[in-house]
Amino acid sequence: MKLKRHNSSFCPECFDIFFSRQVEQAIKKNRMFSREEPVLLGVSGGKDSMSLWFYLHQAGYKVQAVHFDLGMGEYSLRSREIVEGFSKQHQLPLEVIEVKSLINYSIPEVTKKVRNRPSCSVCGMIKRHLLNRYAWDNHFSVYATGHNLDDEAATLLGNILHWQDGYLAHQSPVLPSPHPKMVRKVKPFYTLTEEEIRWYARLHDIPFIAERCPLSKRAKSFHYKEALDFLEEKSPGTKHMFLLGFLERRDRYFASNQEKVELGECSRCGMPTTLEVCSFCRLMERLDSQKERSEENNAHHGSE
Amino acid sequence: MKLKRHNSSFCPECFDIFFSRQVEQAIKKNRMFSREEPVLLGVSGGKDSMSLWFYLHQAGYKVQAVHFDLGMGEYSLRSREIVEGFSKQHQLPLEVIEVKSLINYSIPEVTKKVRNRPSCSVCGMIKRHLLNRYAWDNHFSVYATGHNLDDEAATLLGNILHWQDGYLAHQSPVLPSPHPKMVRKVKPFYTLTEEEIRWYARLHDIPFIAERCPLSKRAKSFHYKEALDFLEEKSPGTKHMFLLGFLERRDRYFASNQEKVELGECSRCGMPTTLEVCSFCRLMERLDSQKERSEENNAHHGSE
Repeated sequence: MKLKRHNSSFCPECFDIFFSRQVEQAIKKNRMFSREEPVLLGVSGGKDSMSLWFYLHQAGYKVQAVHFDLGMGEYSLRSREIVEGFSKQHQLPLEVIEVKSLINYSIPEVTKKVRNRPSCSVCGMIKRHLLNRYAWDNHFSVYATGHNLDDEAATLLGNILHWQDGYLAHQSPVLPSPHPKMVRKVKPFYTLTEEEIRWYARLHDIPFIAERCPLSKRAKSFHYKEALDFLEEKSPGTKHMFLLGFLERRDRYFASNQEKVELGECSRCGMPTTLEVCSFCRLMERLDSQKERSEENNAHHGSE
Repeated sequence: MKLKRHNSSFCPECFDIFFSRQVEQAIKKNRMFSREEPVLLGVSGGKDSMSLWFYLHQAGYKVQAVHFDLGMGEYSLRSREIVEGFSKQHQLPLEVIEVKSLINYSIPEVTKKVRNRPSCSVCGMIKRHLLNRYAWDNHFSVYATGHNLDDEAATLLGNILHWQDGYLAHQSPVLPSPHPKMVRKVKPFYTLTEEEIRWYARLHDIPFIAERCPLSKRAKSFHYKEALDFLEEKSPGTKHMFLLGFLERRDRYFASNQEKVELGECSRCGMPTTLEVCSFCRLMERLDSQKERSEENNAHHGSE
């Protein structure tokens, strides 16, 4: 296994050691969680979350996995099968939750109705809300996601190209809890590339769904990844230097210029928000009012 | 002429108005120079400096052009021909200076000997030093270069990917004079893309050398440009937003964190530097000592 950015090759055993060290350093350096603290893990069925699940389990962490079934036809069926099969095979605790049973709409039903926002943005917001609510309801102090170096560097590039000041002030492998109902959010894989995680998954026969989500075709983050892949190819180590250099400078450059935001509680769901009604509840209201209108229309047409 | 980033098309007349407005705004907003102040312009023979020369002349600015003949064979011969021809055709003041006559080496002779540094970096440093010295010796208070939006955005991307704190604190369309012998440096084309300048040159029959400099093949800035071109294609306006957003935030984010650097004078040439001997003079010493060594070697071989 050749790692250009480290200018070295690894045998499988050494790669495993390299991989563990990266994750353990990420966890320790950023005080993500201890081996005693139960960690909630969102597993999609993709290589990152499946590998993180396997890693945390074999390294002796207390992990509880939750899988949201997004109701995306064949893609969601296969993702769920992979996650459930892996849970059985390794006897790992897992809860599967159908998004539709929680919010009355599947993700495709939502994104079809919300045309003015990229699908990934809407879906991400819903998943973050549901994962945080699940963590809070079930008394977890921390939840983990499988975001990797490529994800984080691409997000950073997008935030910098568009100078998203608020996002730049907060982008981090650990989002501390700013409110009792907002659970700490951690990304133990933030120093590992997609390629390294793919190798890890293969090395340990970790099953995962290889295709991209069918709704993510137009996601801008893919363009940022492509641009960074190109630059990484020309100059190995670029992504790593970019992200890690940013994290060293974030507080000094970006966070110190931000005003503190006061978090209140949403008047509908009670979860933390800077607004009167949180963006999740506003989305739900919008969907429900669309539904009512279309039912009225149908009733009207029916009576004609 | 279609400008995707402005979501509009222009006829030649309107394009000319658009172009003028961009340059005039850049000059005024950044207080680059007035119509009374003589401006020294470095002209390479490329589209940017040739167009800037033409623009400043026809807009009534007092421009004195200087062309450095880099001694790069056919490429330099053709560049010089273009610059000299244009000067004659429009009766524009021009001084041509052979770099070799000033420093005893042509640019290829320098870069052949300095293998541990990219050619563009060495050549750029020499040109900046010579242009500043020429400006100072000839009592100019300001000199201009043809750097465009693509150049500036690519430089910025490189500085950000590698978190070059010092460069980030200072990147600007106007570098104010930090020392009496360091002349103000301005880039009136920093809001215009390469494509727009190419159109302008065609529209006004401005001759220019179209090929890249033969020594610049491995320049990293081309990779940054390629990556940004890709992102611009996917999302028009990216480069503009990236650079202009940076300039708005530069002082707040990047410059305020930098310590002030004390500028002294080089003990050899007397020009401003933060070191005992400036980097230009150190390069010259290195070249001369290499030459002496090789002459000694030759003498030694000759006596055998």
